[in-house]
Amino acid sequence: MDPYAPTPADRFTFGLWTVSNPGRDPFGEPTRAPMDPTHAVAKLAELGAYGVNFHDHDLVPDGTPAAERDRIVARFKRALDEHGLVVPMATTNLFTDPVFKDGAFTSADARVRHYAIAKTMRAMDLGVELGASTYVFWGGREGAEVDGGGKLFDALSWYRDALDYLCDYARDQGYDLRFALEPKPNEPRGHAFLPTVGSALGFIATLQHPEMVGVNPELAHETMAGLSFPHALAAALDAGKLFHVDLNDQIMGRFDQDLRFGAENLKTAFFTVLALQEGGYEGPRHFDAHALRTEDEAGVWAFALGCMRTFKMLEAKAARFLEDPDVVAARAAYRADDPEGAWPPRYSGSHAEALKGRTFDLDALRLRGPGLEHLDQLTVEILLGVR
Amino acid sequence: MDPYAPTPADRFTFGLWTVSNPGRDPFGEPTRAPMDPTHAVAKLAELGAYGVNFHDHDLVPDGTPAAERDRIVARFKRALDEHGLVVPMATTNLFTDPVFKDGAFTSADARVRHYAIAKTMRAMDLGVELGASTYVFWGGREGAEVDGGGKLFDALSWYRDALDYLCDYARDQGYDLRFALEPKPNEPRGHAFLPTVGSALGFIATLQHPEMVGVNPELAHETMAGLSFPHALAAALDAGKLFHVDLNDQIMGRFDQDLRFGAENLKTAFFTVLALQEGGYEGPRHFDAHALRTEDEAGVWAFALGCMRTFKMLEAKAARFLEDPDVVAARAAYRADDPEGAWPPRYSGSHAEALKGRTFDLDALRLRGPGLEHLDQLTVEILLGVR
Amino acid sequence: MDPYAPTPADRFTFGLWTVSNPGRDPFGEPTRAPMDPTHAVAKLAELGAYGVNFHDHDLVPDGTPAAERDRIVARFKRALDEHGLVVPMATTNLFTDPVFKDGAFTSADARVRHYAIAKTMRAMDLGVELGASTYVFWGGREGAEVDGGGKLFDALSWYRDALDYLCDYARDQGYDLRFALEPKPNEPRGHAFLPTVGSALGFIATLQHPEMVGVNPELAHETMAGLSFPHALAAALDAGKLFHVDLNDQIMGRFDQDLRFGAENLKTAFFTVLALQEGGYEGPRHFDAHALRTEDEAGVWAFALGCMRTFKMLEAKAARFLEDPDVVAARAAYRADDPEGAWPPRYSGSHAEALKGRTFDLDALRLRGPGLEHLDQLTVEILLGVR
Amino acid sequence: MDPYAPTPADRFTFGLWTVSNPGRDPFGEPTRAPMDPTHAVAKLAELGAYGVNFHDHDLVPDGTPAAERDRIVARFKRALDEHGLVVPMATTNLFTDPVFKDGAFTSADARVRHYAIAKTMRAMDLGVELGASTYVFWGGREGAEVDGGGKLFDALSWYRDALDYLCDYARDQGYDLRFALEPKPNEPRGHAFLPTVGSALGFIATLQHPEMVGVNPELAHETMAGLSFPHALAAALDAGKLFHVDLNDQIMGRFDQDLRFGAENLKTAFFTVLALQEGGYEGPRHFDAHALRTEDEAGVWAFALGCMRTFKMLEAKAARFLEDPDVVAARAAYRADDPEGAWPPRYSGSHAEALKGRTFDLDALRLRGPGLEHLDQLTVEILLGVR
Repeated sequence: MDPYAPTPADRFTFGLWTVSNPGRDPFGEPTRAPMDPTHAVAKLAELGAYGVNFHDHDLVPDGTPAAERDRIVARFKRALDEHGLVVPMATTNLFTDPVFKDGAFTSADARVRHYAIAKTMRAMDLGVELGASTYVFWGGREGAEVDGGGKLFDALSWYRDALDYLCDYARDQGYDLRFALEPKPNEPRGHAFLPTVGSALGFIATLQHPEMVGVNPELAHETMAGLSFPHALAAALDAGKLFHVDLNDQIMGRFDQDLRFGAENLKTAFFTVLALQEGGYEGPRHFDAHALRTEDEAGVWAFALGCMRTFKMLEAKAARFLEDPDVVAARAAYRADDPEGAWPPRYSGSHAEALKGRTFDLDALRLRGPGLEHLDQLTVEILLGVR
Repeated sequence: MDPYAPTPADRFTFGLWTVSNPGRDPFGEPTRAPMDPTHAVAKLAELGAYGVNFHDHDLVPDGTPAAERDRIVARFKRALDEHGLVVPMATTNLFTDPVFKDGAFTSADARVRHYAIAKTMRAMDLGVELGASTYVFWGGREGAEVDGGGKLFDALSWYRDALDYLCDYARDQGYDLRFALEPKPNEPRGHAFLPTVGSALGFIATLQHPEMVGVNPELAHETMAGLSFPHALAAALDAGKLFHVDLNDQIMGRFDQDLRFGAENLKTAFFTVLALQEGGYEGPRHFDAHALRTEDEAGVWAFALGCMRTFKMLEAKAARFLEDPDVVAARAAYRADDPEGAWPPRYSGSHAEALKGRTFDLDALRLRGPGLEHLDQLTVEILLGVR
Repeated sequence: MDPYAPTPADRFTFGLWTVSNPGRDPFGEPTRAPMDPTHAVAKLAELGAYGVNFHDHDLVPDGTPAAERDRIVARFKRALDEHGLVVPMATTNLFTDPVFKDGAFTSADARVRHYAIAKTMRAMDLGVELGASTYVFWGGREGAEVDGGGKLFDALSWYRDALDYLCDYARDQGYDLRFALEPKPNEPRGHAFLPTVGSALGFIATLQHPEMVGVNPELAHETMAGLSFPHALAAALDAGKLFHVDLNDQIMGRFDQDLRFGAENLKTAFFTVLALQEGGYEGPRHFDAHALRTEDEAGVWAFALGCMRTFKMLEAKAARFLEDPDVVAARAAYRADDPEGAWPPRYSGSHAEALKGRTFDLDALRLRGPGLEHLDQLTVEILLGVR
Repeated sequence: MDPYAPTPADRFTFGLWTVSNPGRDPFGEPTRAPMDPTHAVAKLAELGAYGVNFHDHDLVPDGTPAAERDRIVARFKRALDEHGLVVPMATTNLFTDPVFKDGAFTSADARVRHYAIAKTMRAMDLGVELGASTYVFWGGREGAEVDGGGKLFDALSWYRDALDYLCDYARDQGYDLRFALEPKPNEPRGHAFLPTVGSALGFIATLQHPEMVGVNPELAHETMAGLSFPHALAAALDAGKLFHVDLNDQIMGRFDQDLRFGAENLKTAFFTVLALQEGGYEGPRHFDAHALRTEDEAGVWAFALGCMRTFKMLEAKAARFLEDPDVVAARAAYRADDPEGAWPPRYSGSHAEALKGRTFDLDALRLRGPGLEHLDQLTVEILLGVR
């Protein structure tokens, strides 16, 4: 028995668009043929995945007549049933069609904004029909290169108007759906309107139904801005807002790479796995990545299997880390309680006066060594399999 | 009359630490002598500034005995009165003393966390005594290089505990103070806990008194993460949370430079001025920057004057931009209403059904040119003074 | 007379691929229709351009039969003649065809390397036929995401083998061609093999005919790596290797944007213009950029005109800068000669002994203020048209 | 026997300045006490290091009288002898003293340039006296924030003048010294003049004695610019110019962190070890890094030991990688020879004609899968110790 072979119990999911990515980029034509969604389902099931997610357009190309749509959906359902995959999440493609070239919910053209809402409602219907309970919003085109246009303040309002409307729609339809906003700092737009996980958390607080809306942080997106993905996960979990997660990898400060999970930075991937575990995340582990453009279809499945295996290997490392006696001792030594006062301090006027007047042994506190180099080296040695 | 000569009516403020910066860096010793705070006050007044801000430690070095503290404060007040400067904002230095080497409110040592609260209360007292109505929190040491320590989730709680306590203190004392969190992505820590303006906005929503707490965005900090500062201002203003602002400049993706306002990117500076104006910000325009380390004291005052002059020049550009008939026409042409439906759409079941079924002339929408290259070139030509 | 209206005497050139860019990106379909090369020629001439450059594939799609090729070329020549445009530079498309997915001259497959050489020779023939005297090599696919493949050292050798062969070909054919290598740090590859202008300069020194080979620095590419483009130009000019230049704009640390010249950072654009002038560059000023994807064809011409106008406006600023008496005085004051010794020092044993033993008035040197804040503020005020 | 315990045979070296780093940063005072150089020597020897390197100023503070200098040197030599450490490399501190605030060899003040040469000659004497055979030049202050000063072109000349002079000095003295230029993109200056390894390689080609001068690439420096360190090593080795190497770690796009080797990116560290091995580098493995500012002295030694252990663990991984049958097979399958022609191709007119006319089976070449996802996943699994 290979302990790292994925099984549905691991709740690994892939976007249809990930394994079907044809390897096109701004400078080159596709290197791989289009893939039938049912083939993707069959192969992912064979590899041990739990589910598959999609944009409306991945499954039912925009403009498909109703009868053809139904035929596609029925065929896809049969494939899911046959191979035992589920659809935990769905989303809308609001970026491929040139109609969205200057934004969907934040287009300066109100007709485009209305169209984006209409398209999203239909895509929500499709997602729910296939069983999705999380609905992701990645505002790929919500952003700007030219700030002179003067829509900066309006754009945030329009975005909010659209989300409020769509929350109402979900409630009105009785859909058991949670919304998850997916931030990204740039690309394809020069600057995106909800650039980081924090931005999305801040924006949610201004919505009419904040309780329905959380975030879908993506490792690559946060990394593009040079931010720590484990820290972003912690912020989302701290706010009770981690509704979904997009796992992949990325080199900082460049174009969106969507690399295989663990392909660039194994330590970040490790602390990602650990944060999900320590933060109590129980949703699907979704890989939003794709095989390198150099690869053929065999490379695609090597990529997909690699994402899952690396997650499982790091999960085993996390267990070892949490049990390692030297790690346990170092983590305990790192913390110090305050014998003179419990934390958190409860405010009262007299408590404040006493605290203001208290004398601290600052020299002792300055000299205390936290042992973090030692602890970090232990982490490295566990990651390398040397302890 | 020089139209760009600053006057107190412009509400320009500087931190004491900015003009007094001695030009020390990680690789070199100071190039300038320490500056007496009262000298800074006199010179800033002479240049036309409105106010001066400080960290507790800038004015009253940590550990100063009470009598000496009072003498320093009285002397500083006299200088303010004599030169007609005010103190709109104050803050705490929770980063210079090695006691804070692994965080202040988020130190793993509860004694340090208690000390940080005590120090902040005393610094709030000092700030209020000198007239401050905004109190800034820059968590310079709140962050981590080593995530293995296991405090990631606790750190956010500890941060919140401290802010909640300090809100209670301000209320209990009857202080007319608003708190402004200042985000920064990294430096001096590897990763900071509230890395972006969005992060702070999201975190505020989890506090006990969110209404007391806003943000103090800094141009350099947001730029270090490659994010748009005008966009960050818009997000803060949209949330009603722009309580203060730190103006300077910075090249993306490197160490914190705190350059003279407008020194790196004049277009970003222009849209910053425009966003403050269009967003209705009426607080002080605070420069959190310092002269290059190459400079002597003459260079410091050239730097300070330059910050203010550039702001005023860009303010004049903003007025010209908003009045330029070609700009007005281009901005009008950029937007399109929807003859078939008002925005924002008001949700009802029937509205949603109608919208889902509506036919859009997508080809027309795809082909519409927004004129953004033209508008952006107009902006450039106004900036260059050519129109 | 508009002093900023471009004329052929300004030697402005555009790539065919720039104005014909259809607005496709990794997340969206084209927003603009294909453009006939002769239409591009006519419009560029109308706007005042001097010349047009192309990749083989831009003019003659790969795989075009010989007769059709000749017909296309003849028609294009007629358009050039009719509109008075020249072709100063040509290049090879070694990146669009999936055959180059893992490199052209550095592919691990020797057949691809041979094909790349063959394609380049044919493209050189075409370029020379149309009058090009500079031949650019942008190794778009020369790079890697996976270093485990083991070709890292070989790749540089293969690259050199190919360039040496092509130098021989140009010499053998009697072509009056200089080669210009165009560096880029990443995209479409994870890491490119000649990432910066410096890398190319270093690599040239290892070639068989270094005198034939120089560089074609691109503003956006150097900026993607956070490097200074004016500094890169200075390094290329210092080495006598600035054979061509690609002008555009770019935000640091993100995907390749190819923005309108001056669209992001006017100060960098200004020092670019100044460096070209002070360094004595007399070649074409080539814009390698494209209109934003949001734009229609009107936006494309607004973009192209804007590139040229901004260059001319900055050229006028450069003249003013060099004549401004305060700037002249500040630049003079910035420098100091050494009364005790000429520079450069000529080595002799006794000179070295004397220099080692010399006493310097270090305190005076430490305190000297270079006046750089003042000078930089003068620059800003000239840029803003305020002086 | 611990296979990862360092021994002198591993040729690990540290800078005196690395383990003695007091933990000062731009926002905080030192957290650690100064360390006696002889204590550093004793401890490094105890941990298994091979040698120690220094700046003149680390060992003999600037301005030390001659007699005191001799006493310090003698005492240091005794410590080296006693503990069996060598000094393979030395360098000059041309950045701490405010006299160098605007450059050393590139200062606009010729007196500073002369002083920098004098100081370097004395430091070379000291280095040679202690046995150094490599002399490093890190131009920490060679750069600019303000390009208006007009020294951009002169600066490169001045830099070259100084290096040419110092080459003459070394030759004249009969020193068996090689010079190694250490590039860095920025910090402490806004932009440094030799920003990348490539820049240094290009610059060397313009010197009078290029054969004496190579590079000292630093992992953190190249990473700050988002470049690949293994690729930079390959370029230096390809040019025969890898004279020394600085190992550490760094997060991209931020301040210079000088982290423990392997602390951030284990895969980059692995390919660094592999490139040194495959490229035949036999010089010292120098760690130019320091313990986190949070740490006490115990943390310093945990840091130093960790650097060495991680190198040795990755060396063992490299051996395993090169022997793993699946890796060997994948690397072999990745490459393809060309049955129709040897590589490198030898130029002749007839060869060129034949190649231009050759028909390639492009479809077959397009479809070929290189197996890089598979190979990269094997690498990850070896790194994690799972295979």
